[in-house]
Amino acid sequence: MAGVDTRATPGFYGRKKHAAGAAKQAAGILSQLQEKLFANSKSGDNRKVLLVLQAMDTAGKGGIVRHVIGDLDPQGVSHYAFKAPTKAELTHDFLWRIRKRVPAAGMIGVFDRSHYEDVLIARVHELAPPVEIKKRYNQINAFEQELVDDDTTVIKVMLQISSTEQKSRLGERLDRPDKYWNYHTVDVDERMHWSAYQEAFQIALERTSTAAAPWYVVPADRKWYARLVVQHLLTEALKSMVLTWPTADFDVEAEKVRLSTT
Amino acid sequence: MAGVDTRATPGFYGRKKHAAGAAKQAAGILSQLQEKLFANSKSGDNRKVLLVLQAMDTAGKGGIVRHVIGDLDPQGVSHYAFKAPTKAELTHDFLWRIRKRVPAAGMIGVFDRSHYEDVLIARVHELAPPVEIKKRYNQINAFEQELVDDDTTVIKVMLQISSTEQKSRLGERLDRPDKYWNYHTVDVDERMHWSAYQEAFQIALERTSTAAAPWYVVPADRKWYARLVVQHLLTEALKSMVLTWPTADFDVEAEKVRLSTT
Repeated sequence: MAGVDTRATPGFYGRKKHAAGAAKQAAGILSQLQEKLFANSKSGDNRKVLLVLQAMDTAGKGGIVRHVIGDLDPQGVSHYAFKAPTKAELTHDFLWRIRKRVPAAGMIGVFDRSHYEDVLIARVHELAPPVEIKKRYNQINAFEQELVDDDTTVIKVMLQISSTEQKSRLGERLDRPDKYWNYHTVDVDERMHWSAYQEAFQIALERTSTAAAPWYVVPADRKWYARLVVQHLLTEALKSMVLTWPTADFDVEAEKVRLSTT
Repeated sequence: MAGVDTRATPGFYGRKKHAAGAAKQAAGILSQLQEKLFANSKSGDNRKVLLVLQAMDTAGKGGIVRHVIGDLDPQGVSHYAFKAPTKAELTHDFLWRIRKRVPAAGMIGVFDRSHYEDVLIARVHELAPPVEIKKRYNQINAFEQELVDDDTTVIKVMLQISSTEQKSRLGERLDRPDKYWNYHTVDVDERMHWSAYQEAFQIALERTSTAAAPWYVVPADRKWYARLVVQHLLTEALKSMVLTWPTADFDVEAEKVRLSTT
């Protein structure tokens, strides 16, 4: 991960000015695939998708949700932003509150932060003893395998920005009164732990990138590029499901007759 | 309600071809207002919005969600589609499952169907005795007053289509294999009770259209018009909140200095 060129745009041969057109075209395709996934769930198809977004502050999780997920039909999206656990949540296993938010059949679930905070911030700030954190990697793998066994396509995305880019983005929030609300003094405190976070990410990726639920480390200094990649990952996941419109579970001609008499 | 011209487009002097442009422009304004509502909740503003959508089948609730709510940032939307209550839900008061889904501060909540089903389908199919249903109108008014007291702007929309228009929309679903999934034989059964539903709606509107939580009956034979109206209702609700960007709850200059040293 230390070797990731955060300004790179691998796989996309255009420049920023070409990205908007590409994103719009891809949004149409993704949107239709989503409708098919949703439609199939109505006739018993159990499949669903879970997109997990992790990143350092300002890396662009919010923008991904606004622009990529925002292109989808809200009826087929279940989005949840995990904050610091409440006192009540802390009286349970760390996966307890996560399990309650997993997507139902036909849905695209989006986790803005997730159970990975329990091995990231928890490790950096020693919120749990090392032996406990070590156990969590296995628990996470078992949990995600369970989701996969329940027909969930799990896509885990780590948006990777450089420390310099983060500094510039935090600076911008301090320059714009319409962005103050999104600036938190704790972001600078956290920034002091940059390398500890990188290390925690690195270990988490190694322990939890499985064949069933792989991680994608996405260079994110260029917002437009990171958005295209996430859009692409979702599209490919849905394409590989080979979704078709469900067949009628009723007699179409008989229904036409019945309707005509009303 | 029987007097509503369902093909009318009151207040909009353009035709269908002008609607897309109007909707797009309005979406930009609505989207920025939404961001302000969301932003303010981060500094303690308790205000939120609840949009309740009720209608006969095919009247266009789904389209409103896809096109009007779909223009908003998913981070600030909590959407829930209420289905027939489960056995577990039926062991509670009818408002129990509704209360769990009311929007939090800063959010725009959308109910696709709602507690009104408990005085609509419940009345038409005699799922509860008349005395119980009569009691529910008062319970609904008390519940909605409670939401208003908790700084919720409640917007209740009844999409009104004609029986002829419904017949044509159901027919279209039977003509298009990509729409079969959205056709339910029960829709025709329900159609047989058209006038009973109109009566139930009429009574519900009379009993529950309060100053605090008024009903809007929106002519919906023209989908583009109904969408513009709901967009407009949301926009006006947010405008009347006189939202500004929250001021910084930290020392901006001190933070700039602190950031520069990292």
